[in-house]
Amino acid sequence: MHEIGVGAGLLASNDAVARENRQAVNSHGIYVLNLMSAPGAGKTSLLERTADAMGQRYRMAVIEGDVQTREDADRIARHGIPVVQINTGGACHLDARQVRDHLGDFDLGELDLLIIENVGNLVCPAEFDLGEHDKVMLLSVTEGHDKPQKYPVMFHAARALLLNKIDLLPHVDFDVELAERSSRALNLDLDILRISVRTGDGLQSWYQWLEQRIERTQRIHAR
Amino acid sequence: MHEIGVGAGLLASNDAVARENRQAVNSHGIYVLNLMSAPGAGKTSLLERTADAMGQRYRMAVIEGDVQTREDADRIARHGIPVVQINTGGACHLDARQVRDHLGDFDLGELDLLIIENVGNLVCPAEFDLGEHDKVMLLSVTEGHDKPQKYPVMFHAARALLLNKIDLLPHVDFDVELAERSSRALNLDLDILRISVRTGDGLQSWYQWLEQRIERTQRIHAR
Repeated sequence: MHEIGVGAGLLASNDAVARENRQAVNSHGIYVLNLMSAPGAGKTSLLERTADAMGQRYRMAVIEGDVQTREDADRIARHGIPVVQINTGGACHLDARQVRDHLGDFDLGELDLLIIENVGNLVCPAEFDLGEHDKVMLLSVTEGHDKPQKYPVMFHAARALLLNKIDLLPHVDFDVELAERSSRALNLDLDILRISVRTGDGLQSWYQWLEQRIERTQRIHAR
Repeated sequence: MHEIGVGAGLLASNDAVARENRQAVNSHGIYVLNLMSAPGAGKTSLLERTADAMGQRYRMAVIEGDVQTREDADRIARHGIPVVQINTGGACHLDARQVRDHLGDFDLGELDLLIIENVGNLVCPAEFDLGEHDKVMLLSVTEGHDKPQKYPVMFHAARALLLNKIDLLPHVDFDVELAERSSRALNLDLDILRISVRTGDGLQSWYQWLEQRIERTQRIHAR
């Protein structure tokens, strides 16, 4: 049973490494985001669009987490930004140690924004602090509006929720208001953005959200 | 890291209980299926349709696995078949012990078919034998055709793959042939059915598949 694997001792040891990671990125004023969702909700596609839109104004890098394959890293690399692939080899989430072991692969003095794409999974990733500033989650409208109730830990932990694939709303039975209401019931301060990575709808709001978080990080950890 | 939780000892102990479960259902000639997918791929909706279509001809029951809530069990119960909800309380998959502890909730002498709906997750559930005869997985076409490569353990373990939400194919970028080819590359004997739980498309083939498996189980474990 995996709950044995996430006992208090293990989480405490992970959290200690996460704190070190956070200190390391703070000392360089880098904003770090942990991107989480179910498989196929559109994380990598969102990062491809984000790299194109933000990659000129901010020095951006990506850590790709997957059980196996480096397909996602290859997709990101085509957009001209530094990317590192972490394969968990069976584990269902990234942990702080894996991130620490790869932070040195980047020139941290040359970064403004680091996005970590977690393993596609609505359960385990939410429990592991990687040293990020914010957790952001994607929920595709094809997954159903019952997901906040069923996976409350992740919805509670997220700073922002991106409701993706809104271009498919006419073709699925997804109650946007209900999903937003039950997400906010778990997380009063949750920012919710409706987007379609495919059509580009709503992505300007996402870029603005990201820009505010980057600028805020740079002000606080003034270089 | 959760891989600590799925070490050889833990899996061996799980497998021993799974064997007991299998003996128990075999002695009653019950066919048991472990249904797995990412969150929101349509497992519960498929079971609702299956209960309506098969519930008269076969004595069917369902075990619902979720991190929390008994929403899915309530949905199934409305279709007039026995259902038990297991909440894993944080764990990202069911294990054989949880199934064993609830097998007694049913009158096993009065069942032909037991379907266990696992926690929505493409990683962990594939590693844990529950005592089922077959694993069946749902992949929604909205999740992308790269999923077989990225989650090979589950595709390898499945007896059948149901490609769901094919009514959305005109609206998404999903290469059905590619998905089927890469699934079969992992699993030569995989049965693949294209379905839409929403429109009912392809469900007759699913009911026939299920019927053959039930009949086969009854012949082998003749009562």
